[in-house]
Amino acid sequence: MQSIQQTFQITYTYGVYFTEHLFGLSNPELKTFFKAIPSEGFERKALVVIDQGVANCHPNLTNEIQAYFQQQVSGVTLSGPALMVPGGEASKNNPAHFNTIIEAIDQQGIDRHSFVIAIGGGAVLDLVGYAAAVAHRGIKLIRIPTTVLAQNDSGVGVKNSINFQGKKNFLGTFAPPIAVFNDYHFLGTLEDRDWRGGVAEAIKVALIKDSVFFEWIEQNVAKLVARDQETMSYLIFRCAQMHTDHIAGGDPFEFGSSRPLDFGHWAAHKLEYLTNFEVRHGEAVAMGIALDCVYAHLAGMLPANDLNRILQVLQGLGFTLYHDRLSENNKINLKNGIQEFREHLGGRLTIMLLEKIGQGVEVHHLDEALISLAVDHLEGLHLKSLSYP
Amino acid sequence: MQSIQQTFQITYTYGVYFTEHLFGLSNPELKTFFKAIPSEGFERKALVVIDQGVANCHPNLTNEIQAYFQQQVSGVTLSGPALMVPGGEASKNNPAHFNTIIEAIDQQGIDRHSFVIAIGGGAVLDLVGYAAAVAHRGIKLIRIPTTVLAQNDSGVGVKNSINFQGKKNFLGTFAPPIAVFNDYHFLGTLEDRDWRGGVAEAIKVALIKDSVFFEWIEQNVAKLVARDQETMSYLIFRCAQMHTDHIAGGDPFEFGSSRPLDFGHWAAHKLEYLTNFEVRHGEAVAMGIALDCVYAHLAGMLPANDLNRILQVLQGLGFTLYHDRLSENNKINLKNGIQEFREHLGGRLTIMLLEKIGQGVEVHHLDEALISLAVDHLEGLHLKSLSYP
Repeated sequence: MQSIQQTFQITYTYGVYFTEHLFGLSNPELKTFFKAIPSEGFERKALVVIDQGVANCHPNLTNEIQAYFQQQVSGVTLSGPALMVPGGEASKNNPAHFNTIIEAIDQQGIDRHSFVIAIGGGAVLDLVGYAAAVAHRGIKLIRIPTTVLAQNDSGVGVKNSINFQGKKNFLGTFAPPIAVFNDYHFLGTLEDRDWRGGVAEAIKVALIKDSVFFEWIEQNVAKLVARDQETMSYLIFRCAQMHTDHIAGGDPFEFGSSRPLDFGHWAAHKLEYLTNFEVRHGEAVAMGIALDCVYAHLAGMLPANDLNRILQVLQGLGFTLYHDRLSENNKINLKNGIQEFREHLGGRLTIMLLEKIGQGVEVHHLDEALISLAVDHLEGLHLKSLSYP
Repeated sequence: MQSIQQTFQITYTYGVYFTEHLFGLSNPELKTFFKAIPSEGFERKALVVIDQGVANCHPNLTNEIQAYFQQQVSGVTLSGPALMVPGGEASKNNPAHFNTIIEAIDQQGIDRHSFVIAIGGGAVLDLVGYAAAVAHRGIKLIRIPTTVLAQNDSGVGVKNSINFQGKKNFLGTFAPPIAVFNDYHFLGTLEDRDWRGGVAEAIKVALIKDSVFFEWIEQNVAKLVARDQETMSYLIFRCAQMHTDHIAGGDPFEFGSSRPLDFGHWAAHKLEYLTNFEVRHGEAVAMGIALDCVYAHLAGMLPANDLNRILQVLQGLGFTLYHDRLSENNKINLKNGIQEFREHLGGRLTIMLLEKIGQGVEVHHLDEALISLAVDHLEGLHLKSLSYP
């Protein structure tokens, strides 16, 4: 039999730039970035899509963007007024928002030499990134994440997605952006719970990979709670760096089955759904980390001292580590959560647990009785924290 | 300013296998292919999606597939009955077909360890490939192209797409398959016009890259018209090889702007639309090649002898090289076609023309008056062929 063996490599490269007031007229970052990409004679445009929640907190943002492009940027023009999409999970649930972006890309003549600029939280970046990735088979995407979670985790990675008939992230692609601009200024208007929520992903990556970073977080809990800029800037930078390193050093498009960054996430995903996203992603991840750490301790893997340090950091930051939905119906929902995660992984369960701070280990089985005990433990801690506030 | 520079490479590899009666119980190809992919303990399934036109011509196909999986394949099970989608451009125009495939992937539990098997012509492969590429951010896709065009061109490449509100290929991705099985058996039931149509892409790639291959086609016109299997098999193999070589050696995901394989395609795309796809892709490409070659000759680039050889091959194969829609309204439609192609390319026109057989050259301007003359020339040839049949 005849055959042809096809093999080729694709190189992806992008910068993650840390700045403040990206659209301030004296900020050279974006102007410099555009200048560095040769136009080759193409008429380049940029379509800006903004998270409505961000626009509400920054009512002058669209004017600033217009002024910046008019006065600072040459060779790239805005294709029309900025497009608004609702923030949060709602933007990924309703396919109408996807269609709106695709139509704008079409009507405003955005082609593969042009740009889509997404400004918002993780959900909006996911939605806009997906639309940009499939329109014309891929428009250049610039991400401007506006939450801690998006700046240190999802926004610097290579994934995008929307939900399909209630299935989270069912439609999506692996499509790296052309650049990410982490603008600290946007974090100033975050609610406390979103400020805090983003720290959960930093704790996650520190716990499985870097005990030194965990110790740094441990020592800076008070400053993080006090919303100290320098401290949060370093936390975001280090966490983003660990995420990008992990992606580049591993399996960027997840052709294999190992997913260490899903540590703490199996219960988190379930909890987000069970609470109809009332518990936000970072909050759910904090609970998921706590649950898996208590489990690992009960299973004889994680020393008590390490467990206590982890729980103290999470509680010190103000995370609630228990939710009624974790235990109701005899914990049947959580057991379903394991089963769903197994299916999500293709029939073979792989869960990252800790054997010590900074050292993750993959297991392929969770004991349901031990999970129940772990939930009870968290419930007990929670009741105690309510009694002695 | 702090920044992180992210860089990584992704390696893509897939085989194109040439066979006959892939689902014949004695054919080992597919069985061997599945065996070579380690299951790693995952429950692997396969969802088969079939072009309704192919199923109509091969009424026993679904039974054969079922029997083959039951008796030959171990470690991969069919996830459910095969899904049928209409053949041709209709499948890409109606988003309901995309949704149907996505829903089947969801309901039949197809995950990233499982497979989608697409059997059909180029349009169906485009549609199914797109659905597979975005479901769960990418299900493994096996393509089984059933037309000459799909076996030697689109089916061995890295693109997929659907249309969006009448815009051809507006939504899509670059997503290589995991394997392509070119089953000669399917070509037996092709209409003559589809058999012939696929030869146009072979002529195209020969003209811009390989004069030896063009000479081979020239010498085998009679055998191709007589539907000689050995001749067509070689034509498909060589054309597929040139396409895969071109993809691997160039810019597989088209990050740049050069698109040499679009030779003959600017007018072809327009003509397909103007005739509401009554003129099929291969037929339109033949006309587009003829038009651009006459143009290149009139522009002083292509010698008369080369032009005549090209036109003789196209006519010898039975292609019609002229259509009323090329000239009506004072050729205004065709002029629009250039403008649309320029916009499609991002504002800067790049057209591949010939300077001799086997040697393409890119130009950035087309003279509208010369295009009109070229159309007149083709009309004259056409009228002559009608007078002396």
